[in-house]
Amino acid sequence: MKEEYEFTMDIRIRFNQGDQVVYGNGISKLLELTEKTHSILAASKEMGISYPKALKIVKRAEEHFQEPLLTRKIGGEEGGGSELTDFGKILLRQFQVLNNDVESYALKKMEEYFSEPISIKIINP
Amino acid sequence: MKEEYEFTMDIRIRFNQGDQVVYGNGISKLLELTEKTHSILAASKEMGISYPKALKIVKRAEEHFQEPLLTRKIGGEEGGGSELTDFGKILLRQFQVLNNDVESYALKKMEEYFSEPISIKIINP
Repeated sequence: MKEEYEFTMDIRIRFNQGDQVVYGNGISKLLELTEKTHSILAASKEMGISYPKALKIVKRAEEHFQEPLLTRKIGGEEGGGSELTDFGKILLRQFQVLNNDVESYALKKMEEYFSEPISIKIINP
Repeated sequence: MKEEYEFTMDIRIRFNQGDQVVYGNGISKLLELTEKTHSILAASKEMGISYPKALKIVKRAEEHFQEPLLTRKIGGEEGGGSELTDFGKILLRQFQVLNNDVESYALKKMEEYFSEPISIKIINP
């Protein structure tokens, strides 16, 4: 056995309804980038997913929450764009605090549970 | 906005090395079922994954840990079978306690962070 293994760690939290994913880290990142870039197209590019896939992810969550997450501006002086609705902003914030809290907790617990016999050091960038 | 949404939640913890998954909930379940059934074939069937895929998952983890996780008995009176090595058992236990702890914590924090404005009730079976 090596004295200490070095790995990165990731945590994923997902809300589901039946077999369907409602909300998780993927859409959270998508909303975060849409908020930053004011464009779901730019956000999908930055995440390396297709624009139709990004729209589908948002649409599915909107159906489950029965609320729009994005406002869609068509055309206009600066072309189309997307902004988060108030509901979208609140959902994003609540998930972010949960995710950050759980991630910090898991990293702390890793050190506790993976100190011995098997020792793993998390070297997340 | 609905008064309260009802979803199930799942948490996934993963150790990675570069782009490769080293260990996570999938292999953890596979080892757990192999321990119970004394057969990685039976375990893979119960998980609905192919036998070659199951072997590949275990092999990859063994390479990263530089330790065997399973003993493979070929033939013999009762046919082939797989048992966890001591290293495999310890790894499984350490991950299970981490996973259970983080899952409980996340469920508790869900109630805290998703009580308002957006209220989500987790109805895991």
